[in-house]
Amino acid sequence: MPAFGKVYLIGAGPGAQDLITLRGARLLAQADVVLHDALVTAEMLELCPQAVKIAVGKRCGQLSTAQAFINKQLVDQAGKCALVVRLKGGDPMLFGRADEELRALEAAGIEVEVVPGITTALAAAAATQQPLTQRGVARSVAFFTSSTAPAHPEQTAVPDTDTLVQYMGGREAIVTARRLLEQGRPAATPVVVIENCSRADQRVLRLTLGTLAQGLGETHGPVLVMLGEAMRARPQQALGGTSERAEELQRQA
Amino acid sequence: MPAFGKVYLIGAGPGAQDLITLRGARLLAQADVVLHDALVTAEMLELCPQAVKIAVGKRCGQLSTAQAFINKQLVDQAGKCALVVRLKGGDPMLFGRADEELRALEAAGIEVEVVPGITTALAAAAATQQPLTQRGVARSVAFFTSSTAPAHPEQTAVPDTDTLVQYMGGREAIVTARRLLEQGRPAATPVVVIENCSRADQRVLRLTLGTLAQGLGETHGPVLVMLGEAMRARPQQALGGTSERAEELQRQA
Repeated sequence: MPAFGKVYLIGAGPGAQDLITLRGARLLAQADVVLHDALVTAEMLELCPQAVKIAVGKRCGQLSTAQAFINKQLVDQAGKCALVVRLKGGDPMLFGRADEELRALEAAGIEVEVVPGITTALAAAAATQQPLTQRGVARSVAFFTSSTAPAHPEQTAVPDTDTLVQYMGGREAIVTARRLLEQGRPAATPVVVIENCSRADQRVLRLTLGTLAQGLGETHGPVLVMLGEAMRARPQQALGGTSERAEELQRQA
Repeated sequence: MPAFGKVYLIGAGPGAQDLITLRGARLLAQADVVLHDALVTAEMLELCPQAVKIAVGKRCGQLSTAQAFINKQLVDQAGKCALVVRLKGGDPMLFGRADEELRALEAAGIEVEVVPGITTALAAAAATQQPLTQRGVARSVAFFTSSTAPAHPEQTAVPDTDTLVQYMGGREAIVTARRLLEQGRPAATPVVVIENCSRADQRVLRLTLGTLAQGLGETHGPVLVMLGEAMRARPQQALGGTSERAEELQRQA
């Protein structure tokens, strides 16, 4: 099958329809086919009513064969359609498995372009009005994930930056918190947890490193954990989204 | 002066007009006044023809009084206008001095909302088709800047993540490279330097840690330096934007 189409790897951003870029929205509106993740929201897909939509959803814990199947679908679609969109939650180049898709497309001689998206950490910082960097307080930030081997979360390396953001950081963030306490970070270090960032069911918890190490309670969607002195609430800050559980944990702290 | 307006801190993204979010573009089109950085491009300001535009430009090395003046202007404008936009290059919450502006607005009792933008690192990863993370190779990435005291670049802490991205990283990145070599990172570690990301005059250099430590040559705009094994070019990758200088340095390496 000769390749003639072009593939766009597009970052959808955190979920809200209007947090995709103008470029991403324009390409979605022109796409023949859109292969999208499970994390891409229904409202985002309203931007491409004309396109054939193929869910290639995967969540944490997917098999690598699933990725091989997505790669094959991308190549196949580029052989049939002029404008193929691979739509990913967040940004394609940060925890997006873009490397594997780029290699597969390049090996097949297919033209590809990447359109960046709002990564969840930046959407979460905006939603909670909590800057990731702060003059004199935080000059570096790391984005990281736990080991992909869920049986060995203790293998997670914890970066040494001022601010830390753990993606897919539900239960794994508890391990991170314990490690940081062992390394001497103060138990009072502020932590912000955001679930379903930018969506209608967004939930924000404000904890401390000490309370996070004790547990996180039940979560029901993608969870991002941000921690470090930059996460400290300001005196007159609107704490929108703080849930009862967070208040409860704040009282305990 | 009673405050009645609302202020939006909006990330413009790296420069290209269509790399702002739909939400950012919609608010720009409704703004009464737009206070923008020097890094915000002329094409971006075409999205708000109706607005009074005020350049509050600052580059590296600005005095902190300049920030105090911007804070005052934001508060003053919110007392006069219903919809005030503070438009920043990249994302407001990452190296954007948002903390200081949020505190000033909160102290004045002014409602504020933050709209995220594409941070330069993600735009650079997209433009160079070089993912910042890669399964089995790079599971963590740090964004950092040098010391704000240019006389003491040696005080820069270099994070220990797999991938490193230094913002405003021209001459300062040479210091970073030397430090990383001292710490034992291989001289062959790939480096991607991007200048004027996403703009017409974008320039991409592909170096190694060893060649970066020897110097970077002349640069003419905002420079971002990305390094780590994830920056290694793929066998069949289109190396768009690679300049003659990069090729020359690649030959030397």
